[in-house]
Amino acid sequence: MQFLGKSCTLLVIFLLTGTSFTHGGNVLVLPGEYSHWLNMRNIVEELLNRNHSVTLLVSSASPTVNFTAQERFEFLVFDVPLKAHEAHSLSEQMLNIWMQQPTPSRVTIGLQMMELTGIINEIHRTVCGTMLRNDALMARLRDLKFDVLLYDPMMVCGDLLAEILELPFVLSLRISLGFSMERMCGQMPTPPSYVPVPPTVMTDHMSFMERVKNMIMHVVYSFAFRMVSKNLDNFYSEVLGKPSSMCETMGKADIWLIRTYWDFEYPRPLLPNFKFVGGLHCKPAKPLSKELEKFVQSSGDHGIVVFSLGSIFKNLTMERANTIASALGQIPQKVVWRYSGKTPETLAPNTKLYDWIPQNDLLGHPKTKAFITHGGTNGLYEAIYHGVPMVGLPLFADQPDNMMHMKTKGTAVVLDINTMESKDLADALKTVLNNPSYKESIMRLSRIHHDQPMKPLDQAVFWIEFVMRNKGAKHLRVQAHDLSWYQYHCLDVVAFLLSVVALITFLFIKTCSFFFRKCLRKTRPDGKAQKNKKE
Amino acid sequence: MQFLGKSCTLLVIFLLTGTSFTHGGNVLVLPGEYSHWLNMRNIVEELLNRNHSVTLLVSSASPTVNFTAQERFEFLVFDVPLKAHEAHSLSEQMLNIWMQQPTPSRVTIGLQMMELTGIINEIHRTVCGTMLRNDALMARLRDLKFDVLLYDPMMVCGDLLAEILELPFVLSLRISLGFSMERMCGQMPTPPSYVPVPPTVMTDHMSFMERVKNMIMHVVYSFAFRMVSKNLDNFYSEVLGKPSSMCETMGKADIWLIRTYWDFEYPRPLLPNFKFVGGLHCKPAKPLSKELEKFVQSSGDHGIVVFSLGSIFKNLTMERANTIASALGQIPQKVVWRYSGKTPETLAPNTKLYDWIPQNDLLGHPKTKAFITHGGTNGLYEAIYHGVPMVGLPLFADQPDNMMHMKTKGTAVVLDINTMESKDLADALKTVLNNPSYKESIMRLSRIHHDQPMKPLDQAVFWIEFVMRNKGAKHLRVQAHDLSWYQYHCLDVVAFLLSVVALITFLFIKTCSFFFRKCLRKTRPDGKAQKNKKE
Repeated sequence: MQFLGKSCTLLVIFLLTGTSFTHGGNVLVLPGEYSHWLNMRNIVEELLNRNHSVTLLVSSASPTVNFTAQERFEFLVFDVPLKAHEAHSLSEQMLNIWMQQPTPSRVTIGLQMMELTGIINEIHRTVCGTMLRNDALMARLRDLKFDVLLYDPMMVCGDLLAEILELPFVLSLRISLGFSMERMCGQMPTPPSYVPVPPTVMTDHMSFMERVKNMIMHVVYSFAFRMVSKNLDNFYSEVLGKPSSMCETMGKADIWLIRTYWDFEYPRPLLPNFKFVGGLHCKPAKPLSKELEKFVQSSGDHGIVVFSLGSIFKNLTMERANTIASALGQIPQKVVWRYSGKTPETLAPNTKLYDWIPQNDLLGHPKTKAFITHGGTNGLYEAIYHGVPMVGLPLFADQPDNMMHMKTKGTAVVLDINTMESKDLADALKTVLNNPSYKESIMRLSRIHHDQPMKPLDQAVFWIEFVMRNKGAKHLRVQAHDLSWYQYHCLDVVAFLLSVVALITFLFIKTCSFFFRKCLRKTRPDGKAQKNKKE
Repeated sequence: MQFLGKSCTLLVIFLLTGTSFTHGGNVLVLPGEYSHWLNMRNIVEELLNRNHSVTLLVSSASPTVNFTAQERFEFLVFDVPLKAHEAHSLSEQMLNIWMQQPTPSRVTIGLQMMELTGIINEIHRTVCGTMLRNDALMARLRDLKFDVLLYDPMMVCGDLLAEILELPFVLSLRISLGFSMERMCGQMPTPPSYVPVPPTVMTDHMSFMERVKNMIMHVVYSFAFRMVSKNLDNFYSEVLGKPSSMCETMGKADIWLIRTYWDFEYPRPLLPNFKFVGGLHCKPAKPLSKELEKFVQSSGDHGIVVFSLGSIFKNLTMERANTIASALGQIPQKVVWRYSGKTPETLAPNTKLYDWIPQNDLLGHPKTKAFITHGGTNGLYEAIYHGVPMVGLPLFADQPDNMMHMKTKGTAVVLDINTMESKDLADALKTVLNNPSYKESIMRLSRIHHDQPMKPLDQAVFWIEFVMRNKGAKHLRVQAHDLSWYQYHCLDVVAFLLSVVALITFLFIKTCSFFFRKCLRKTRPDGKAQKNKKE
């Protein structure tokens, strides 16, 4: 990957591949990083397959997007006062907060995350500011006359750019902390009585005390989101030259592509412009390399177990690695383990380490019997797509919550990677491999996944094309966006109605007491007289 | 139509058409009446086209379903102590309530409707009871081993039958009064701040006072629905032999097919098992009869106007008919008027009366320039499908609300049929015909209608087939069904949290006052002594 220095203010790399964009629309893409970009890349590729022209707008500090590669789409790279490794270190800091040992309290993690999010938002401000104030870049973007902008909210200012370029836009989102973005910017209703706030690791069947916890977390996340986004709101107002906010701008999105579906999610309310396209990256398996196929075939009838903790997390302590390796040695299956750390001493002959594995092709292999995973959504969807039961070793962020979904649906056993012993992992693997209910459950999810009116990738592209064809999709956008929070919750109406009731009651009582007194006065003289007499 | 007497307890008519049902599933259908059945018939036909077997379960008193006709599906007719004309007279009574002149207050209409609904529910109880207590019929239904039950809630006990037969079921609904069924039985969220309660004839852009009205109507309809359905709840409990309710049973529906879409609706929240299939009955136009085509062609470049007030409403007063006819004479277009009343004296040569018209074929004719309609959903969807602007003369039920949707979206001018004068209608027609914005708006809706991932009819059938393939669609059903209303609205949680806060505040104050008094007691003696001295 190439890092561009501060000195060059704008580097525009045109990697025209000779494709003529005579047909189709013109799409501007602001990708996220890491697995977010890997996921969105599938949409980009499909757009290209359908003869649309795609331009990827990416900062010079992108730790993931390799903008020097030969691609079918164009790159538009803008320089920022930041290096890729600096951007990457922020992700590592986030990882470190989650992975602290011993695990601190959730409140501590929350406060640390809020602090780091503040720093990240500051960097976003810088990156966005640099981009939006780059007159040459903005002029170029205007010249290119895009039809739609597609972005991942991981890159915060896609909506701001769309607003400035007056483009309809589509966003691609997995989930936000506490559904804050979906709720507060997208107006998606999430009744706290049965929609668990992520990542509280609860299901849609909550006990009374869980509902209490859910309600508290609902409020806490809303408050935290307001706190964290306040700084960005000022930036949005500053850039647009009028009072605005991130939510107001993001709320103008024509379509929200949500990277899950009801195979994975607990059913909950949605909005007409929320389209669930989970697993859009999943594909039938391709043949494995000769070497890998040979190893897989050597497993005989027992088959294999695929093991990966994802692309971000690199190192286990030797103690943990040994615990895991010795557990893997206790099952008759062969194990394909993606692991680039030092080889554990307890590694058994049935286990082979790989720096990288063709995960989707392995999960789709008929010999694959189970998947040990950290619970990232991309991997989970590959397991659902191919119907492979799981053992979950969730690490951070949404992963514990993701694995809870899989556990609830009967497709996975979940362990704590930091505290489990060899026996726990071996037992979990044996359970998943030998108890047919896990296979049955994941096959049920797989059927649900495949049995949709339209494939997820086709649906994602359909709605991007729809926005291009119709210059937006405002007919799907609820009017709630124009209401303040107290109007949305009818607090003004309730206050008004209560006031009216109070007034009527007051007038009624006053009138009654007036007439009562009048009546009393008429009858009183005698009564009073008698009373006085007695005294 | 044939009416069956009370004496025969069960008449099973098998009109096998020779189709062999070797492929596909086995579908039991309980249709609604009038336009409801006309709409559902399209689903039935498509199911037959896809090699599914369909059995229509219909009472001998059905005023609409002609069960003596030769059809591709089977009929299962059960006798009820009611005649078709008696059933029909109930609809006429409902019509009469709406059409009273001068129009009474909404409260009067509401009370009259509640009274009539009570009578209708009583009849539903009788019809359902007769059906469910018919052992021979129930045995036959069990023998037929259906895969799914499809019903229109106009025939209330479809869900009850599904529960008894242990069948997954799909319901087809246009709308219920105040969204009561969708909200209270289906758990669909309808925030009163921006979802107008039908049929209050408001849009999703409400002023403060409109929101107040909407909130009040929300509560009133909820209350009225509870009142009206209470009687049915007892019946449900009685039949099922356990405490139950209509909402609880209906809430078990796997899929709710809603007969609208976002071309017509104001965007609002939905649930994963709510599928919007508005306009599923719309088809490309077929050629007209020679005589009609000749009349249409005689209109030249001016084109024609299609006019129909639907199939239920038959008679206008001569005064109204004359007002309308003279208005129609003032436009250069030819008019095709579906009208079976006495020919108006003012009828102009450009207008031709027909007892029946091929409405869809006429609306799809290139010469058609406008549509005068009562605003029934089926007709509106044909106008949207073919892109024909409208003049609305809504009569009753959801029609004023439907036309409000069309007016808001800029596709129609709406008049009051009881008070309008000739000039009003002529002006409205001229506006719709000459102001291009009406045509542009309806073409925009038409584009939205046609630009969907899946055609509405295909989607309806897809989800019925899905339910058959997967024996239900419980993964789309929200957990809110298992919560009581106060749990759903978190009232118990809020009460608990407020109690905790109150308790903490109380303890805090008590503790403070305790220490305060203690401190005071320590310092008091001197102070008190001094004070006493002064005294």
